[in-house]
Amino acid sequence: MKKHFVVIGLGRFGGSICRELHSLGHQVLAIDIIPEKVNTMTDYSTSSTVTDATDKEALLALGIKNFDVAIVAIGENEHASIQSTLVLKEIGIKVWVKAQNTNHQKILEKIGADRVIHPELDMGIRIAHQLDSDNIIDFINLSKNYSIVELKATGKLSNRSLIDLNVRAKYGCTILAIKRGEDVNVSPSPNDIVHEEDILVVMGSNSELKHFEEKGM
Amino acid sequence: MKKHFVVIGLGRFGGSICRELHSLGHQVLAIDIIPEKVNTMTDYSTSSTVTDATDKEALLALGIKNFDVAIVAIGENEHASIQSTLVLKEIGIKVWVKAQNTNHQKILEKIGADRVIHPELDMGIRIAHQLDSDNIIDFINLSKNYSIVELKATGKLSNRSLIDLNVRAKYGCTILAIKRGEDVNVSPSPNDIVHEEDILVVMGSNSELKHFEEKGM
Amino acid sequence: MKKHFVVIGLGRFGGSICRELHSLGHQVLAIDIIPEKVNTMTDYSTSSTVTDATDKEALLALGIKNFDVAIVAIGENEHASIQSTLVLKEIGIKVWVKAQNTNHQKILEKIGADRVIHPELDMGIRIAHQLDSDNIIDFINLSKNYSIVELKATGKLSNRSLIDLNVRAKYGCTILAIKRGEDVNVSPSPNDIVHEEDILVVMGSNSELKHFEEKGM
Amino acid sequence: MKKHFVVIGLGRFGGSICRELHSLGHQVLAIDIIPEKVNTMTDYSTSSTVTDATDKEALLALGIKNFDVAIVAIGENEHASIQSTLVLKEIGIKVWVKAQNTNHQKILEKIGADRVIHPELDMGIRIAHQLDSDNIIDFINLSKNYSIVELKATGKLSNRSLIDLNVRAKYGCTILAIKRGEDVNVSPSPNDIVHEEDILVVMGSNSELKHFEEKGM
Amino acid sequence: MKKHFVVIGLGRFGGSICRELHSLGHQVLAIDIIPEKVNTMTDYSTSSTVTDATDKEALLALGIKNFDVAIVAIGENEHASIQSTLVLKEIGIKVWVKAQNTNHQKILEKIGADRVIHPELDMGIRIAHQLDSDNIIDFINLSKNYSIVELKATGKLSNRSLIDLNVRAKYGCTILAIKRGEDVNVSPSPNDIVHEEDILVVMGSNSELKHFEEKGM
Amino acid sequence: MKKHFVVIGLGRFGGSICRELHSLGHQVLAIDIIPEKVNTMTDYSTSSTVTDATDKEALLALGIKNFDVAIVAIGENEHASIQSTLVLKEIGIKVWVKAQNTNHQKILEKIGADRVIHPELDMGIRIAHQLDSDNIIDFINLSKNYSIVELKATGKLSNRSLIDLNVRAKYGCTILAIKRGEDVNVSPSPNDIVHEEDILVVMGSNSELKHFEEKGM
Amino acid sequence: MKKHFVVIGLGRFGGSICRELHSLGHQVLAIDIIPEKVNTMTDYSTSSTVTDATDKEALLALGIKNFDVAIVAIGENEHASIQSTLVLKEIGIKVWVKAQNTNHQKILEKIGADRVIHPELDMGIRIAHQLDSDNIIDFINLSKNYSIVELKATGKLSNRSLIDLNVRAKYGCTILAIKRGEDVNVSPSPNDIVHEEDILVVMGSNSELKHFEEKGM
Amino acid sequence: MKKHFVVIGLGRFGGSICRELHSLGHQVLAIDIIPEKVNTMTDYSTSSTVTDATDKEALLALGIKNFDVAIVAIGENEHASIQSTLVLKEIGIKVWVKAQNTNHQKILEKIGADRVIHPELDMGIRIAHQLDSDNIIDFINLSKNYSIVELKATGKLSNRSLIDLNVRAKYGCTILAIKRGEDVNVSPSPNDIVHEEDILVVMGSNSELKHFEEKGM
Repeated sequence: MKKHFVVIGLGRFGGSICRELHSLGHQVLAIDIIPEKVNTMTDYSTSSTVTDATDKEALLALGIKNFDVAIVAIGENEHASIQSTLVLKEIGIKVWVKAQNTNHQKILEKIGADRVIHPELDMGIRIAHQLDSDNIIDFINLSKNYSIVELKATGKLSNRSLIDLNVRAKYGCTILAIKRGEDVNVSPSPNDIVHEEDILVVMGSNSELKHFEEKGM
Repeated sequence: MKKHFVVIGLGRFGGSICRELHSLGHQVLAIDIIPEKVNTMTDYSTSSTVTDATDKEALLALGIKNFDVAIVAIGENEHASIQSTLVLKEIGIKVWVKAQNTNHQKILEKIGADRVIHPELDMGIRIAHQLDSDNIIDFINLSKNYSIVELKATGKLSNRSLIDLNVRAKYGCTILAIKRGEDVNVSPSPNDIVHEEDILVVMGSNSELKHFEEKGM
Repeated sequence: MKKHFVVIGLGRFGGSICRELHSLGHQVLAIDIIPEKVNTMTDYSTSSTVTDATDKEALLALGIKNFDVAIVAIGENEHASIQSTLVLKEIGIKVWVKAQNTNHQKILEKIGADRVIHPELDMGIRIAHQLDSDNIIDFINLSKNYSIVELKATGKLSNRSLIDLNVRAKYGCTILAIKRGEDVNVSPSPNDIVHEEDILVVMGSNSELKHFEEKGM
Repeated sequence: MKKHFVVIGLGRFGGSICRELHSLGHQVLAIDIIPEKVNTMTDYSTSSTVTDATDKEALLALGIKNFDVAIVAIGENEHASIQSTLVLKEIGIKVWVKAQNTNHQKILEKIGADRVIHPELDMGIRIAHQLDSDNIIDFINLSKNYSIVELKATGKLSNRSLIDLNVRAKYGCTILAIKRGEDVNVSPSPNDIVHEEDILVVMGSNSELKHFEEKGM
Repeated sequence: MKKHFVVIGLGRFGGSICRELHSLGHQVLAIDIIPEKVNTMTDYSTSSTVTDATDKEALLALGIKNFDVAIVAIGENEHASIQSTLVLKEIGIKVWVKAQNTNHQKILEKIGADRVIHPELDMGIRIAHQLDSDNIIDFINLSKNYSIVELKATGKLSNRSLIDLNVRAKYGCTILAIKRGEDVNVSPSPNDIVHEEDILVVMGSNSELKHFEEKGM
Repeated sequence: MKKHFVVIGLGRFGGSICRELHSLGHQVLAIDIIPEKVNTMTDYSTSSTVTDATDKEALLALGIKNFDVAIVAIGENEHASIQSTLVLKEIGIKVWVKAQNTNHQKILEKIGADRVIHPELDMGIRIAHQLDSDNIIDFINLSKNYSIVELKATGKLSNRSLIDLNVRAKYGCTILAIKRGEDVNVSPSPNDIVHEEDILVVMGSNSELKHFEEKGM
Repeated sequence: MKKHFVVIGLGRFGGSICRELHSLGHQVLAIDIIPEKVNTMTDYSTSSTVTDATDKEALLALGIKNFDVAIVAIGENEHASIQSTLVLKEIGIKVWVKAQNTNHQKILEKIGADRVIHPELDMGIRIAHQLDSDNIIDFINLSKNYSIVELKATGKLSNRSLIDLNVRAKYGCTILAIKRGEDVNVSPSPNDIVHEEDILVVMGSNSELKHFEEKGM
Repeated sequence: MKKHFVVIGLGRFGGSICRELHSLGHQVLAIDIIPEKVNTMTDYSTSSTVTDATDKEALLALGIKNFDVAIVAIGENEHASIQSTLVLKEIGIKVWVKAQNTNHQKILEKIGADRVIHPELDMGIRIAHQLDSDNIIDFINLSKNYSIVELKATGKLSNRSLIDLNVRAKYGCTILAIKRGEDVNVSPSPNDIVHEEDILVVMGSNSELKHFEEKGM
């Protein structure tokens, strides 16, 4: 189902959201106060406009009232992101907004932001986990204790079958899938063979996964 | 196994990496050219110092040679990130570096960066996918066609057993786990009951997942 | 009863509050981020300090928790006044804060400001009313329709008794007091004589007062 | 009687005067050197113009000679307010002007300003008096010793008649009126009942009023 | 008789006054707000100090009260020169002050300046008169119609005696003196001979002098 | 005889020269690089133009070659005044130029300036001499030792004849003229009477003049 | 054979290359981001244009693909010179580029610059060699040990024949040519006479040349 | 013979001169007004100092009087280079100075500079000549018509003897030397063999050299 989004602030983060939503087939209105930034989104949005997103009248004139979600991705100017969030909530739509720090987040929440995002913090955490293990490619934190991780298979696992590896018995965690290039085996059978450079998608508790990564691979 | 990291550039992204690596128990040296930024990391790093990271002599004096990975998280100043990457590669260690745009990335790769990161782009894509579906909480792209997603259970699924839902037969995708608050059921049995607000961890092709999300939930 | 106030922002408005509260015998802590402004209040406050009033730790260290009211009189920097109000409310004291405009006011109210003040707007209104009539010296708006005003007596009233003027019968409004220099007659008797340059304190509806001012004086 | 005013400097203070005089039905010419500020007054003035108010020829061309009063509300630029006052007095009209500090005031008086105003100082004093008592809503200083104040009735006074309260006998001060929301009882009779949250308009000496506020309420 | 002067503002004009008064044997106090400018006058003043000359307390502390004249030679900052003049007149001494333009002059006169000087205007006029005639070296305007001028003798006058030239008879003006290098003949006799390059000091009406300069030389 | 002047740099000094030359009936071309300054001279010059006076081609296009003298009155920018002087001398006309300091003067002389002027220095010296004596109105330095001065007559000289005063015998200096308001008596006879406030034009050595001023007046 | 060059950055160095290549008869396209600089090259290039040379699309639109060599002479902005070099190499042409320092040079080489030039360093070395000897006019370093130098003949050599001087025998170096004004004798015979101020073109080892310069001349 | 040089302005050009003169064994005093630039020369000069080189007293205090040559390599600030040259010539030493443009050069020559250098222009010309021919490595312009050039031998000349090539007969120019890596054959015999990549040092008229380069190689 097609939705209507307005993305306010077309820096790297806002621009990335705008392009991705557009490529997913949604209606996207791209707004920034700087003409050059608006121009960069002409081909990656349904429409784009130079508008001061702290000006309620201007936003109303754009019909913002009928959009599903506004994403406030304004960068450095915390006060502008607060003012824009205020008027968007007065207009009455859902607002997701990027915060620069904890106080900024608290103010945004108090004035009614529906979701507050910290892209740099979140991405920093993701990168740290990849640095933590040379083999982790990507991960989801299911909870404080459980994760799903993508691990690159080392030579030690090369040419061994899943039954031979016996990961669940030895380490307690489960191999959900095996990726080989663009192919993904989402129902691996016990006789499937792991090759070096394959990527194993594994679910388990963090300690089990750590154990498997350090001893099993 | 404890590793040695040096994080250069202590803005929101670099600071987040620094704190997370430190909390994961690694040795982390935090570097920035601005004293105020260095001060913010005193409690979240093994050691921290005000240093010009484009100055090879200064980096050598800090013993950077013996670190496992340098993370160059310098923000706006592309040229400084290029210069810093150059001298770190001359020193001879692994370098992960944040790029601001495509040209920046190409230069970084040509001068030898081991990995180039785009945190705002990547995070923008993640946020766009969450906006795409109101129910998606987090996801891993296994390949262009396969993903694992976290979906919030709607009322429609409430109080129904997995066997009753019969997701694999109807939609082709697999429920890997069920999260309820901080608890994670990683080996869900057919009789397990789904509650509203539970989070289902589901693996499948993108079209299967989309189908399940729109029709099954 | 002596109270404890902290005045944040020592420009003309904040400085004036600080001096007046101090002269009324209260404990006043004067705070600004600019040393020169703090120095101007040394003699007009119980204590004064250069502090960043958006820094919660710094405010706690000053014992702000135990003050009765914080007056945030920060001038141009709207965002600093918002941040300061946020942390003061987190600390848990009463906050009166100066707003620069309507949006600023709304944000301040949403984050919990106990009272929002517009000194320039309010004073502008007072001055306009004094310009409206050459004779009005000061006034209180009791309601949208009723006011108490100070009117300078013109020659027309000179040497006439209150009974002779018969203001209540002719104009419907009441003469509450007669000022002559520093003397105030708060219980004027019917035989009291009005002199030119006396100031009459009169209560009535706005139309009655206007009528009296234009016809009676 | 309609008057002609020119307001020079359309910041918060000048803008407030402009709007109020306009709403009182006067002819108001709004002047500023910054077009954006002039635009904000288009709907709140009889006419508005971008003019350098230190330029005598320009002011003469606007027919300033025939206005009743010029209000010089220029903000930070003391020298511009001095120059503007000089040329307005040369043109020969009455000038009310906002001062930034004592020296500014002295210069303005020496060059002939008819009245010098300190809005922030005056408003600071008003706010300080309201802080001095939690119950004071507004006040007029009749003299150094006498005032009229608006006091919010506490629970202690609730449901008591004026005769029962007997304020004049106990405290020496007089209740002039009782406000309840927008209604004002300007001729309170002895049997009138005071409700909590009513606002009492009371006249008396400052010590009597203080006494009443602290003991009687 | 030695006098006491204070020179405020040590640019080229103020510095020149300071040096000349000092070389004439007077007590001179040199003041500027910029240390580098104060340093340039150390050797050309009795004492010199970095002081804000708009600060009355600071000036009183320097004992300015007992000086004969203050010369306010502040350059570009008109408002500072006005403020300084105000406080010097409050202190109660004679003030000569440099004006930048006509409005500046009027303000200075209204706040009590004893003499207002326009060095660039005056010097411009002097230079224009020297350009008017190639031969005029210097001049005093005695009145609108009479002047004393210094004229360089051309070849036409060379080796002729005063009696031969007969200037008074032919042109109506009087040769007061003849300068030859550093020598000045202040009582020229009829037989004295004029040489080329001699400078004649001549008094007369402007038309007589013009006539002599154009025809006689 | 009408001459052709070009005045470059229309600040206070250049503007004053321009106006005076124009009022003396000469052809004056006024040049500045700032349009606002050029506008101020439209009514006080034969023609005026916005031109970069360091651009030889631009000056040639204006026909500067045929002017009698260029006056370079450029203010703060020493290098521009040097460059302008260079190209004017290359064009081949006479150049008078204002210097800011001694080094500036030396450079100007070396590149061929015909006359270097120091208006602030010269005017500073004139003002210092007027301060030196309360009675000196104006003066010419004939040489290091001889001057002509204008002295205001004090009460001591009032109603005395020249023969009675006997100035030449007593002090060695000569009274050349007596000014009374706009009237000038250029051939004073021995019986002429001096009035208080008359201005005496006196020639003599500096010591004689000083002696007369201090003892005789 | 005519070649096609594009010169990017039209400062003194780039401008000099542009003019010289143009005067040698080549096709030269002159590019800068500043219009004023482009204008200076209109007469000294085949075509000139204001273009951002870090913008690949813009360069392609100019047909840069078909040029022989691009000379990147961008001055202070190291990052722009790196970006421009990157896109020019992507376009696929030869790039000569000016470096500001050693790190700049390394980055340029890594991203594929064909030649890196240090004009100020190289010219500094040339000037130093000319200062080293008062007689050296120009030189080529053939190797670390051998050079060809131009030496101005001193009086000591005046009117002596080459056979008489016997330079090769005495000093080991060879006189290749004798310059006299614009004439060059490229095949000097033993009987040719050297005049003072002649310039000798001499080849030899550096020590031989030094020896000849110090003893023989 | 060791000389004494002072290098003023330690940018890339001045720094290069300083280092080269120092490496040639001369006494070099390095001066700049910016401490960081002085620091870069500490190891490449006999002594170095932060001094304002437009301050004659400061230069005299350094004993500049006794130096052989001052090299004024001040970069952007033309006026400072003029002022410095002026005072150095007043001190009485030889001055070589870098010019930024033609007017700058003319001023420098008029105030007495002994030699005016244009490093970027000269180097631009050298680079243009190298671009003109792919084979030219370096060159000396002996006169407008004659040059010595270094040409890289192409495959066409490979393994041929000088007698076989017969360059003088065919093209009129002379092969003076053959370089092979760091070796230089300064007396090539007819039987010497040329290898590809050898560098030929050739003297001749420009047309002969061009002819040889295009046809012979």
